[in-house]
Amino acid sequence: MSKTFHMHKARLETLVDGVFAIAMTILVLEIKVPELADGRSSDALLAALGHHASVIGAYFFSFAMLAVFWVWHHRLVETIRLFDFPLLVCTLAFLALVCFFPFAAALLGRYPLNLAALLVYVPLTGLIVLLQTLFFKLAVQRQLLVDSVSSDAVQATHRRNLLGCAIFFFASIPTALRVHMAWVAVCFVLGLLFVWLARAKAHSGKASA
Amino acid sequence: MSKTFHMHKARLETLVDGVFAIAMTILVLEIKVPELADGRSSDALLAALGHHASVIGAYFFSFAMLAVFWVWHHRLVETIRLFDFPLLVCTLAFLALVCFFPFAAALLGRYPLNLAALLVYVPLTGLIVLLQTLFFKLAVQRQLLVDSVSSDAVQATHRRNLLGCAIFFFASIPTALRVHMAWVAVCFVLGLLFVWLARAKAHSGKASA
Amino acid sequence: MSKTFHMHKARLETLVDGVFAIAMTILVLEIKVPELADGRSSDALLAALGHHASVIGAYFFSFAMLAVFWVWHHRLVETIRLFDFPLLVCTLAFLALVCFFPFAAALLGRYPLNLAALLVYVPLTGLIVLLQTLFFKLAVQRQLLVDSVSSDAVQATHRRNLLGCAIFFFASIPTALRVHMAWVAVCFVLGLLFVWLARAKAHSGKASA
Amino acid sequence: MSKTFHMHKARLETLVDGVFAIAMTILVLEIKVPELADGRSSDALLAALGHHASVIGAYFFSFAMLAVFWVWHHRLVETIRLFDFPLLVCTLAFLALVCFFPFAAALLGRYPLNLAALLVYVPLTGLIVLLQTLFFKLAVQRQLLVDSVSSDAVQATHRRNLLGCAIFFFASIPTALRVHMAWVAVCFVLGLLFVWLARAKAHSGKASA
Repeated sequence: MSKTFHMHKARLETLVDGVFAIAMTILVLEIKVPELADGRSSDALLAALGHHASVIGAYFFSFAMLAVFWVWHHRLVETIRLFDFPLLVCTLAFLALVCFFPFAAALLGRYPLNLAALLVYVPLTGLIVLLQTLFFKLAVQRQLLVDSVSSDAVQATHRRNLLGCAIFFFASIPTALRVHMAWVAVCFVLGLLFVWLARAKAHSGKASA
Repeated sequence: MSKTFHMHKARLETLVDGVFAIAMTILVLEIKVPELADGRSSDALLAALGHHASVIGAYFFSFAMLAVFWVWHHRLVETIRLFDFPLLVCTLAFLALVCFFPFAAALLGRYPLNLAALLVYVPLTGLIVLLQTLFFKLAVQRQLLVDSVSSDAVQATHRRNLLGCAIFFFASIPTALRVHMAWVAVCFVLGLLFVWLARAKAHSGKASA
Repeated sequence: MSKTFHMHKARLETLVDGVFAIAMTILVLEIKVPELADGRSSDALLAALGHHASVIGAYFFSFAMLAVFWVWHHRLVETIRLFDFPLLVCTLAFLALVCFFPFAAALLGRYPLNLAALLVYVPLTGLIVLLQTLFFKLAVQRQLLVDSVSSDAVQATHRRNLLGCAIFFFASIPTALRVHMAWVAVCFVLGLLFVWLARAKAHSGKASA
Repeated sequence: MSKTFHMHKARLETLVDGVFAIAMTILVLEIKVPELADGRSSDALLAALGHHASVIGAYFFSFAMLAVFWVWHHRLVETIRLFDFPLLVCTLAFLALVCFFPFAAALLGRYPLNLAALLVYVPLTGLIVLLQTLFFKLAVQRQLLVDSVSSDAVQATHRRNLLGCAIFFFASIPTALRVHMAWVAVCFVLGLLFVWLARAKAHSGKASA
């Protein structure tokens, strides 16, 4: 145990993989087996499942979101040598939000037309996306990257993260539209800002090369 | 992080093992502890458990199905060097269906005589079986196999996968029979097709040897 | 992929550890938060928790059982080189019973005085214990042990397994007593038989040494 | 399999990581999707979520607690060579309490103002903290530490563990205040005792250096 706190990647990654595996599987627990008056009527069961269509759709959509977050996180961690304290806190906060995701997904599946469900789901997704970007920024600043990662690759990863943020802000415009025009403007401006930051990274990447 | 996307096997396999472990364990959550008027009456509890017999049977059957899928997936992945993007997407889609499996199992356990429950369970199983076959086909096409795997072993695996598809289509004939004769014909023809494809593989395997 | 089927230990063990971790954690899901008329009354909540005492006791008892099974399984697998098909089937059957354990535990916690709950719990435990013993017997017969394991250690493990079976049969006598005297005799005779087998192993171990 | 019982770290750590990952994710299962009379009313859903605020707050607080326990446990285990029988029992008891944690968290989230919920949550946390301290004390006594760990590092870890106990006792004073003044005195004295023990360790650490 050294003076400066650090944590081995392997252990933390086992926890991350475990949490993702469970969050993905727990999504399905929200799809309840419908109660039928006549258990032998296949029409009644099909109709009941039809009513569940939004829950089932939300399941596959949320599974895909979690899969994207998992692959994204994995690719970021691949470039990192070890976790110091701020990176550890950042990762654990990320996990807390990932574990919260099944609740947001259940809410959206149960009330797909309800704005309030989107007001939980969309900001939660945004926080996860921003935490990922922050995580990599911290890792670069604190010089915890693996030596073999070229500065070009670092710039490319930064650019991808920033574009991810931009995509999130543009994708949340329809939700913002249902709240207030001011939020549409905020999302649009933030989306443009992240596109501009990503382009700036691309130029600085080329300049340094 | 290289230009061409790839993912280490170890991480993805941890996720796969985690998802299977949870899906297998979640199956049991559908077997509810029965509510009794008289908690001390062992006859009442045995009778209530008797009513649950189909749920308990569905549990062990679905556990066996998941175990077969897990061993099958494991044996396929053993022959693969790394995951590129299409293989990763294929595996994540496979996982989404595996996570969905406990819901289908719960539906079948709750309504064992209901055709609609089979219409969820059987196509889901079919999709999983077809995805496994597609997964290996993609891996061979994209030349991602481990070098030490002989072309004979590849042909044998292909043959086993295709026979798995054939078994699935023949096994789903009783379900098809309850829907429409046309579906029986479809299942029968597809079953024969996969048997024929498997035999063709066997011959080409011998020819190349 | 060789002609003779085998499976690497590491993968199967990840699945086993995952299943045990989840089965242990799922036990707690059966302890429901009590519903109170007056949420602020601490006396009412303490009284409600008092009613849950048997569920909470069953939780810790079942957790200890699972922990014993896990340590036992782990110590057996440590001596094994690889899994062939019969050992794999034996392990997967063992996992199916372990996954079923939380249901039996919930049943016992809900109806602690009900004989029928014991008639699920006790035979399930017995099957798990017998499967472990069978598993090791198969491994020895099929010569899948690690070379460095001495024949003395093999005898000692056999003896421990057989004593485990004997302990199970003696411990199930109180349950048998509530069913019929004939079952008490069966349990008693089987318990003695396993003690005798264990002693025979001990002698043959000394004889060979 | 040697005569003296021991267990490899890797296997036990997989179980620990699995249990923590599931306990963290299971916390969220207690946040139920609210039932609404009018599913499209976003005001009704926001109001219902507002009522859930204490459950959601308890989720994030309990997640943070589990994260602290996990990091703490991980740092202790890093210094240990192998697990003998007492350490194994200590770790499994620790896991049983960690698995019980989601129930205590659900109780506190459901009845945040109820003293009885605190009387489950606080002693459970205390037991976990004390078990961690005991675990390290046992490991040092039984000389199971990795050789490369300096005696200074051991003293520092001891000190941190004892300070953790002290923090727990001071933090439980508000709860004690609601029970009886005598318990406040007990918590205060125990807190001071652990601060004094930690200081004594600091001095002995310096003296030995």
